Formats: sequence, C-alpha cells, structure tokens
Amino acid sequence: MMIVMQSDATQEQISTVISRVETSGLTVHLSRGAERTAIGIVGDIRSIQPDQFNHLPGIAQVTPISRPYKLASREFIAEDSHFAINGLSIGGPNIIVMAGPCSVESRAQLLETAHAVREAGGHALRGGAFKPRTSPYAFQGLGEYGLELLAEARAQTGLSVVTEVMSADQIPVVTQYADVLQIGARNMQNYSLLHAVGESQYPVLLKRGMSATIQELLMAAEYVLSHGNRRVMLCERGIRTFETATRNTTDINAVPVLKSLTHLPVILDPSHSTGHWAYVTAIARAGIAAGADGLIVEVHPHPEEAMSDGGQSLKPERFAQLVRQVSAVAEAVGRQLAPQPMHPTAVNGTTAVHD
Amino acid sequence: MMIVMQSDATQEQISTVISRVETSGLTVHLSRGAERTAIGIVGDIRSIQPDQFNHLPGIAQVTPISRPYKLASREFIAEDSHFAINGLSIGGPNIIVMAGPCSVESRAQLLETAHAVREAGGHALRGGAFKPRTSPYAFQGLGEYGLELLAEARAQTGLSVVTEVMSADQIPVVTQYADVLQIGARNMQNYSLLHAVGESQYPVLLKRGMSATIQELLMAAEYVLSHGNRRVMLCERGIRTFETATRNTTDINAVPVLKSLTHLPVILDPSHSTGHWAYVTAIARAGIAAGADGLIVEVHPHPEEAMSDGGQSLKPERFAQLVRQVSAVAEAVGRQLAPQPMHPTAVNGTTAVHD
Amino acid sequence: MMIVMQSDATQEQISTVISRVETSGLTVHLSRGAERTAIGIVGDIRSIQPDQFNHLPGIAQVTPISRPYKLASREFIAEDSHFAINGLSIGGPNIIVMAGPCSVESRAQLLETAHAVREAGGHALRGGAFKPRTSPYAFQGLGEYGLELLAEARAQTGLSVVTEVMSADQIPVVTQYADVLQIGARNMQNYSLLHAVGESQYPVLLKRGMSATIQELLMAAEYVLSHGNRRVMLCERGIRTFETATRNTTDINAVPVLKSLTHLPVILDPSHSTGHWAYVTAIARAGIAAGADGLIVEVHPHPEEAMSDGGQSLKPERFAQLVRQVSAVAEAVGRQLAPQPMHPTAVNGTTAVHD
Amino acid sequence: MMIVMQSDATQEQISTVISRVETSGLTVHLSRGAERTAIGIVGDIRSIQPDQFNHLPGIAQVTPISRPYKLASREFIAEDSHFAINGLSIGGPNIIVMAGPCSVESRAQLLETAHAVREAGGHALRGGAFKPRTSPYAFQGLGEYGLELLAEARAQTGLSVVTEVMSADQIPVVTQYADVLQIGARNMQNYSLLHAVGESQYPVLLKRGMSATIQELLMAAEYVLSHGNRRVMLCERGIRTFETATRNTTDINAVPVLKSLTHLPVILDPSHSTGHWAYVTAIARAGIAAGADGLIVEVHPHPEEAMSDGGQSLKPERFAQLVRQVSAVAEAVGRQLAPQPMHPTAVNGTTAVHD
Repeated sequence: MMIVMQSDATQEQISTVISRVETSGLTVHLSRGAERTAIGIVGDIRSIQPDQFNHLPGIAQVTPISRPYKLASREFIAEDSHFAINGLSIGGPNIIVMAGPCSVESRAQLLETAHAVREAGGHALRGGAFKPRTSPYAFQGLGEYGLELLAEARAQTGLSVVTEVMSADQIPVVTQYADVLQIGARNMQNYSLLHAVGESQYPVLLKRGMSATIQELLMAAEYVLSHGNRRVMLCERGIRTFETATRNTTDINAVPVLKSLTHLPVILDPSHSTGHWAYVTAIARAGIAAGADGLIVEVHPHPEEAMSDGGQSLKPERFAQLVRQVSAVAEAVGRQLAPQPMHPTAVNGTTAVHD
Repeated sequence: MMIVMQSDATQEQISTVISRVETSGLTVHLSRGAERTAIGIVGDIRSIQPDQFNHLPGIAQVTPISRPYKLASREFIAEDSHFAINGLSIGGPNIIVMAGPCSVESRAQLLETAHAVREAGGHALRGGAFKPRTSPYAFQGLGEYGLELLAEARAQTGLSVVTEVMSADQIPVVTQYADVLQIGARNMQNYSLLHAVGESQYPVLLKRGMSATIQELLMAAEYVLSHGNRRVMLCERGIRTFETATRNTTDINAVPVLKSLTHLPVILDPSHSTGHWAYVTAIARAGIAAGADGLIVEVHPHPEEAMSDGGQSLKPERFAQLVRQVSAVAEAVGRQLAPQPMHPTAVNGTTAVHD
Repeated sequence: MMIVMQSDATQEQISTVISRVETSGLTVHLSRGAERTAIGIVGDIRSIQPDQFNHLPGIAQVTPISRPYKLASREFIAEDSHFAINGLSIGGPNIIVMAGPCSVESRAQLLETAHAVREAGGHALRGGAFKPRTSPYAFQGLGEYGLELLAEARAQTGLSVVTEVMSADQIPVVTQYADVLQIGARNMQNYSLLHAVGESQYPVLLKRGMSATIQELLMAAEYVLSHGNRRVMLCERGIRTFETATRNTTDINAVPVLKSLTHLPVILDPSHSTGHWAYVTAIARAGIAAGADGLIVEVHPHPEEAMSDGGQSLKPERFAQLVRQVSAVAEAVGRQLAPQPMHPTAVNGTTAVHD
Repeated sequence: MMIVMQSDATQEQISTVISRVETSGLTVHLSRGAERTAIGIVGDIRSIQPDQFNHLPGIAQVTPISRPYKLASREFIAEDSHFAINGLSIGGPNIIVMAGPCSVESRAQLLETAHAVREAGGHALRGGAFKPRTSPYAFQGLGEYGLELLAEARAQTGLSVVTEVMSADQIPVVTQYADVLQIGARNMQNYSLLHAVGESQYPVLLKRGMSATIQELLMAAEYVLSHGNRRVMLCERGIRTFETATRNTTDINAVPVLKSLTHLPVILDPSHSTGHWAYVTAIARAGIAAGADGLIVEVHPHPEEAMSDGGQSLKPERFAQLVRQVSAVAEAVGRQLAPQPMHPTAVNGTTAVHD
C-alpha cells in the first residue's frame, strides 16, 4: 500500500501518517521526490484499512501497489533512482562503465588493468577477490590480499571498486576495501546474503540469476531494499537457454522491461552474457541503445593467461574501442558517458607511479 | 570443399576445374568476388580427393569447409552478400526497414498502413495474406485477395512487398504479386518448402524457428542456397525461453554471431521478439547497434482492432519515431538508412490518389 | 460450444439440433459415447446464441468449451478415444509398442529389424522412407522404394507400418503402403500438412514440436480432428532445454497432463527424448509408469552402421529386454501389453521365409 | 587422478602411497570397496606425475579421472554408495519415501501429518522450519520452534527428520534437531553453504538448481564430498523450461543419467517437479520406474489452508495411494520399499499419544 501526500503537506502531517502506520506494527518507507512525497507501507497489510487514512489531513491518495515487489516498483517511486559513489553518479542521465579482470590474480595484473581501464575512459574497477567457482578444485581467488590490491588500484586511479561478496560473514572484510558489493548470479536467491547486504547499507550490484525471471530479480532487489538499503543496481548478465553458440543468451528485452517496471539503475554485463570477447562490443552497444544505464565488462591485459574467463575478456585496446563506440551510441540516444572520477594525482598534486 | 582460384586464373582454367568436379557427380557453386573466385563443391565429398586438383593450373588453394553449412559460410564467401529488390539494396552498408500489418485485413487498412510506412521512411511493406494460426478456428488470412491488395499498395507507394508463403503449392500465386517470400518461424525446418523456395529463385526472408539454434538456422538457409537461390535474408525473431515477461526472448547475441559466421544479411524482428509494442523501439535500436542490416516491424493504424498481433503493433506515429531513432543509432555505428525507393508518382509523372 | 443430449433423446431430436446449427453456417462434430451423445459446434460461435437451443426437445445441457482446443478436449469426449489399426487396438487399456529403424536403409536391414521387433513382442514397425534432415547434403531416405520394403516387412510379420509424411503431396504415395502417417516434430505446426492428413482420414501419429507447449500440441491435433479425422495419437518425444547431457529432455509431466486434458492416446518416444541408447529402457519404463498408452522405439540390428540416429538405437536383444521390463511395469499399473497382431503365417497357412 | 591398489595390497603399501601423495601437498580420499581399494587424489594434479607411483609395490593401476567431478564419479567409486540414517538404509536396493509439509506451520498440523506419513508407509519426515521465500514479506518459517516440533514428531513416529538449512550459521541449531540437512535448489551453488555442510558431516539432501545442468549438480556434490562428507543424496526436483502447464519440467532423464555417472543415491521430488497434486503420483511412479532410489513428497492434511505450496501437496489418503502404487512399480523393477523404521512405541514399550 502507498500513501501519496499532497504537494503542500506539512512535515507534521507526514509524521502523523507515519506514526499511525507504525502503531499498526507495519514498516514505513519514505520516498521524497521532487514533485511528491510517498509513504510506502510494507508488512501484513491486512492489519490496516485504507479508510483509516483517508480522513487524515495532507493526504492526496491511498493506493494499493499491485505488484509483489513494492519498494522496487515504479508505482512507488516514479522517477529514476540515482545515487553517488565517490562522486560518481549512477542511475542519472549519464552512462557508467565498470571494467576489470574476472579475478584479481596479481598486483601487476590488477594495476596494469586498472590504469588501462582509467585511460580508456572507464569509471569503476571490477575484480573478484572471493570467486564462486563451479569446481572445488579451481582457483578460489586471492581473498583479502585481492581486496588490498583493489584498494591500491583505487588509490592510484580514482576508480571505485566493485567486488563480489559470497556470504554474510565476508561483508565486514569486503566493506573495508570495496565501494560496491556485487551479488553474483548464483547467489541471487541467497536470502541470508540479501538480508545482510541490505543491512550493510553499502551500494549493491545485484546480478540476475541465470534462470531467474525478471520478476524474481525484482523480488531479490526487494529483499535488499526492504532492509533500508536503497542503493541497488540491477544487472542483466545473460540467461540460460538452449542456444549453445554463446555462453548465455543476453536478454536484451530485460533492459526496457526493467526500465518500465522499476526505478532502479540497470546495468548490462556483455562479457558473461555472450561469453566470447568477439561479441562483447556489439552487445555493449546494443545494451546502451536499449536504454541501459551502465556496463560491466571484463578486461584483462593478457586474456590467454587469465585464471578464469579469459575467453570473454577484452584486451585493453579493444576495451578502449568499446568505450568510444558506446559513447557514440549513448549520444545517439540522447545520453552521454559520465565524466570520469577525479584522478588521485589531481587531488593530491603528485604523479602516481605504477610498477 | 572449396577451391580458390589464383587471382589471374583464366576462364578456361576455371571451366576445367568445374568439369572435373561435375564428372565426379558433385555440384559446383561459383562465387566470383572482387578479389577472388571460389568454387564450392557440395555433395558426397568422399568421391573425390583434394590432390586430384592440386596440380591443375590456376588453382591457389584447395581447402575443406569445416562447418556443416557450406554456401552460407563466411569461409565460402568472405564478403557480405548483397542484392537488389526493385532497386533497393539489401545487405550492403545501408539499413533497410520493412513494416506493415501482421495480417492484411482490408483495403482501407492496408493502404492506410502502406502510406504511413512510406511517409515514416520505410523501405518495404510486410503483410500476411496466408496466415499460419495456432487455432484452426482463427482468421486464416484473405488469401489471394490479400495479395492483390499488397500489389495495389506497392503500386501506390513504391514499397516492395514481403509476404509469407506456407507451402510449396502457394508459391506460384504468391510470386505473381510479392517481391520477397517470407518463411515463417514454424516452417523453418519444413524442408519441402525450403526446397521449393530455393528453386523459385525469388528473394527469401527466412525466420529463425522459435527454438532453432543459430546453426540450424544456417542449415535451413543452406537448403535454399543449395538449390541455387542466393538471395536469402536471415531473420532473428526471438526464441522461446523460460522468461514470460515478454512473448519471446530477443537473441541479440545472434546478430554478431550470424555476422561472423555468414555473409547473408541479418534482419531483426523486434515486434515478435518482444511481443509488446512498448519495447519494440528500444529493441529495434539495439538490433541496429548490434550490427543488424535491417528491421521488420509490425505497424497497424488501429492496433486495438487488429485481427492478430495487435498488442505488438506500433501506431504510425510511433513507427515514425522508431525510424528516426534507428537512423540516429545507425549513424553512430557508421551506417545509415537506405534511400527510400523511388515514389511511383515520380516515375509515371502523375499523382497517386489513394482511397 | 457443446450440446449434450438427454440419454433418451431420439435420432430425430438429434437431427433437429444438427440442422439448426448447420443453418447458422457452423460445423457439427458428433460424439456418441456409451452414456451420452454430445454435439460439438465449431466455427465462429458468435453467430449463434445458446438460448436458441435451450427450448429444443431432447437437450440436456448447452455448455461452452473453455479451452482453445475443442474436439481434442476431455470436455468434449470424456472417455479415452480408441481405434483399431489392422486389428490392433490403440488407446484402450492395452499398451502398444512400435519399433524399428530411424531410416529404412536396405531390404536386409529392414527385414532383419522387422522380424526382431516381432519376435521381441512389438506391435508395429516404424521406419523412415522420407527423412527430414538438418543438412541438405545428408541421406534423405529411400523414398518410395523404402515404402515398398516396409510393406514387404508387414507382409512377412503382420506388423502395421508407421512412417513419416513430410508434405501434402507425399500423402497419396505414402498411403499406398503405410498404416499410420507420422507427422514429425519439425512439422507439428505445418498447417498445410496437418490439414491434408486431416482430410486423408488415415491414422496419424503427431509428434510434439521440440519447443511446442502442451497446448500447442493439442491445437495441432485440433487441426487434424477438425477435418474429420478422429484417429490421432499424440507423441511426446522430448523438448529442448538447457541440459546437454541428453539430446532432449523427456517431458514426462506431459504424459499425465495430456491424459487429463485430452481423450487422445499418448505415446512416448524414449529414443529421441534421450538420444542415448543407454537411457532408453529406463525412460520407456517411466513412460508406462506415468500412464502412456504406448511407445515408439528405435531399433537397429547394427547401430554402429546406421545412416542416422545410431547412437540412440537399441540392438534387438536390448529391445527384447525393454519389452519384458515394460510389460512388468504395465502390470504394476494395472495394464498389459496388447496381444501381438496375428502372424501372416497363421493367416495364410504358409511359413514366411525371410531373406 | 586415482590409484587403484592390487586386491592383496597390504595396509603398509596403502600407507606408503598416501604419504607420498600428501608430501606433494595434495589431498587423499580413500575408497575401500568390497573388491578394490581406490585412492583418489584431488588438488592441483600438475604437481605430481603418474610415473612416480607406477613402481611402488601393491599398485594395480594409476588412472586419470576424466570428469571434472572426482569423488562423485562412478570412476572413483564403482558401486552404489549407501549409508544409514537412524537405521534406515539409503542408497541400497530398497526405496525410501520422505514426506511431509512444505512448511512446519503448527504443532497440530505437523503431528497430524507425521502420523499420516508413518501410517501410509513413509520412512522420513520432511518439513521446512527456515523457508526461502521469493518475497521478503511472505511467511519465512517458524525457525527453531519449527525444529522442536520436527523433533517431537520424530519422537512420536520414529521418522527421521529432513529439513532445509539456508546458511552456514544455521547449521549448529538445525543439527541439534534434524537428521538430514537439505540444501534447497536456490542454494545449490552457494559454495559457502556447501563447504559448511561438507564439514558438518551430517547427511545431506542436495537439490538440483532450477537451471543447473546435471554436471553442475555433480560439481556441487563434489564440494560437499571434498570436505570429507560422503553422505550425500542428489535430488531431481524439476528444471525450468518454456512449458507452463506445470510448475517445472521433471527431468526424468536425469535419473538414469545420474545413476550412470555417480554412485550417490538419487531422489526424485515429484511435488516440486510438477507443481500440481494431480500429477504427483504418476511422476512418483515414473521416477521409481526410471531407477530412482527414493522420493520426497509434499503431504498436508488440509492443502487448501497451507501457508505455502498447497497446490502441490497431497492429502494423506492420496499419499497412501501413492505409496501403494510406488511399491508395485518398485517390485516390477526388482526392488522394494525399505522396511519402515522401528516405531518408538515398540522401542520403549509405551503407547505414544499424539495431540
């Protein structure tokens, strides 16, 4: 249920509504937009009745929200959500590009990649320190040392750090170093983890499960949102179908469908959604043409030596080409790439030297 | 197997190779490119041996073609195929847009749509006269009268006509009126029909089956090509997956995959691949951004009254918007919309009057 | 719409209803069951109104049929449909087993297989004379000579012949030799072909398309039924999914779902639905346990030499084991294998000699 | 890699091999079968070479294991794995039936169900105390109180308790009450959880993810096995496909495929794999006919009032019918239902009183 206040409602009127709701044992989520203030009510709605509110002063409208996800819905928040990470605005009119290696493998590999991403025009650095691997015998990531390297790369380049968290007990250590917590596709319905990142209040990049419906993705986001964490990005990374020419099938339809159903930013991962570097740039262009708010791309200086996902990683020069082409498409659809974050050298007045 | 001739090979040398192949009971397909002449050999290759040819004069190379499709492969023809239909070039650098109603329903409906497609910038008119319908009790199309109306619309607008043919015995009547024979998704593996359109020598728009792999689509094209018909366009129209938010899942990956595997033009059908008009324009933009050579779009002046597929049909003004946006994206990827065909009024010096 | 007559309705009362319906331009399908006579009405139902009939004498009930398939539905015919082919009853309490090679390859191969199928307890012989092949260069079947061999095998063994028909123009020649017309998975929505086999009045084995829903299979059956041909068997042959360990995924759920939605006999094809001989017997047992009315199984005396589908063909001795195991499962679910057809030697008093 | 010892190898010879492996930093898994002792070696195999071992006394064979899963493979353990839970043997020749409600809802509901399961012939009680729910607003289970009720039901009926564990931190509390830890489909690739249940050494029922391949299921099992926990059951519970007539598609092929690839017991869940009570019994029969070692079935005394999954739950009398029918099919395939566990009343000589 949602209560929309009149545009001239006073703070006192809003508070009265909130306390009335909370008295019924329900939870309130407040959305203050430029044009209206909406009060979302979640919990067992059967314990209250809409007409309790109709006579209160300052209320414009009391409406049910028909979808099973409430806080994630466009019905609750009509305008696009946007939020800043280290000064980088996500979800606004500008497009962001996150890039980096599948796994953090070594200091040299990560720093070389980070500088290449920065130089090519990227906005954030991705890299896995804790890796979910199909085989228990495969490389599982560098762990905390990988996180330290990511932080060092951020210090040198100004790029914010996006990295995966696989279980609730990793959150304290990961949040010491990272800016955005990535929930991987295999954990999209790991509700204990969703609950924990919801409480963490750190920005979240939530990847769609490989056979999750769009509605299930939104319900997973609702888990995070319902614990008070509003900074959630949704990521289409390909779904599993019968087609074997590509690793996954990019559900490009999901981009406009999500943009119509939710106010949350939508990111496309063309590396996992195709699984072949040769198709990544074309699908990156398609994603922006379809309306995505950003990209997350695998880049590796020496893909043939990568410990994971080499086949879908772009070399730095191809990534630079991707950024140029994506920029052109962004302009064709009336948008543009976000300005890059301030370079640390610009901030502290010294020249960063890397290896 | 493929024999590539030296660039200065004489006609006589080429003829010698061909007659040697035909003596072995095999079939020859000749591809004369700007830079090389290739002789494709199909049939039971075991009956000849490569070294029979190595010593013949004028031969540069004898190579196997590793893929199960031969004539459709980039190995056989390295450059993009292109061909003209009534002066409209398909498969070249320019993008074409085909549009029109799912079914031809009446003279007024069709002519109104055709003029709208023309005015919005479209290049060809699509419309079904023979309709494959899931139910035997549903409207099955106007048949030959529908074809007559399509021809009348072409006379008024200059737009070439694309229409579906459902069985070999319809080919004679359909080719009296139409310019391009569409093979529907449900008939992609109707080999009797593929054989027959192959022999017809009319341009073919071959739609991917709803659960056909990309390789199966290319094998279906090979059926048409192997009967000597080289004018084949491939059409991605969405595949069937678990996702129910859209009617089908647009396999956008198929666009760059097909462009790398085959020289045939690739068309995207965003109407069937999404099933909802609200997503058609975004996916049309994505298709061009991904590298498609054209679009086929459902347009209806009054979608709410359409006898089939109303929910996925665009109104004329939204279609005009689609054409404008697609044009901008085409330019961003270094291409442009094809020039529209000459208007009949310009040709015959009189003013066409419609209804 | 369906009109159920009173149990004591006279022929004259029935005729009155029928002529009233036909006067409205609609088509009547009469179902005389042991307990009731039902008159199905198909066509554009909007042209009549139920209350035109309510006052006519002899009518028990006028009811809409809510499903898009009418004649195929349990609502229209509540009891299981059954019919005889050369004395073999299909769709009744007994289980039938059809078996034979994917393709008819030679006289020796076919006759050896046919005798092995007969000796192992099979009821009908399957074998392809016209083969739908993914590649235009692959073996396309022996054509009419293959049909002649099938007829010869029937003469020697008494087994009825099931073979595929790929287009309407093959029906005259195929029906000279075969007892059951098989519609392959790729042609399940080839409406021209469905129409033609409907008019042929020959028994039909309709295979589910590899990505057809259960409802689409029933709609395809409706095409055949609506042309007056009631002798239709439905065949589950596996659907296409993401799983690659098997060629297809046997949709075993389809067996009880179909048995609840339709009165038509349900056959399982464990050879195509698994694609590996090692799994065929287990899935055959599962099919009968789930309620299927019969099986169609690929058997080849020398699978390693088969021109198609060798990997999924059983050798004769393994097929004999399958029949024994299936028979045991049939008894566990209160059914049994049908008696084998009379042997020709028993009929004509001579000893058949094969090869 | 796997080292198979000669049948008369001494303990000392075995120990020598083991210490040699461990010196190389690899891990040893010992399998002592009736006929042979095999030593599985896991870890980065590149650090040792097979010929280091060839000359050691007592070794019969050194072989690579070609599949990515080692401990789960039939190559490593050729005979079926079996193990006992409270005297109930799982994975041997006998079939087991686990049943109970989706969620533990109340004391009365659970005890009524448990007694009904016991009386109908079931062997273990399933019931969720911690429930993974798509919506954060849906009933999330009774938590520890639900576990207490499960333990009480076991005390009254002798049925072992199977219940889901959703995260590593729930393991201590769940193992105070439960006999088998269920990993739900959504957590099949939650590697932190797999690691933790592997270390717990409690029997595990591992459900296949809704779009996991058979190989991925085996890799998930390998995670548990590689931490030393050998008591793992695999559960087919339906996969996600395009078919919407049922909630999921039962991948019945997975039963014989798993039985050929792995030695682990295979359980079928016909409730989730169909989603409709009307189809559960048919698919349960099919599962046993295909070779499954057991079933897990949802039973609820009043499905129409269930807080979750009511539509797929059987009433007790239908469950009793399922057990009878499954028993008949088991005998048809040469197996039988396991004897029920000893009743507590028989053990302690008093009469249990419930509710």
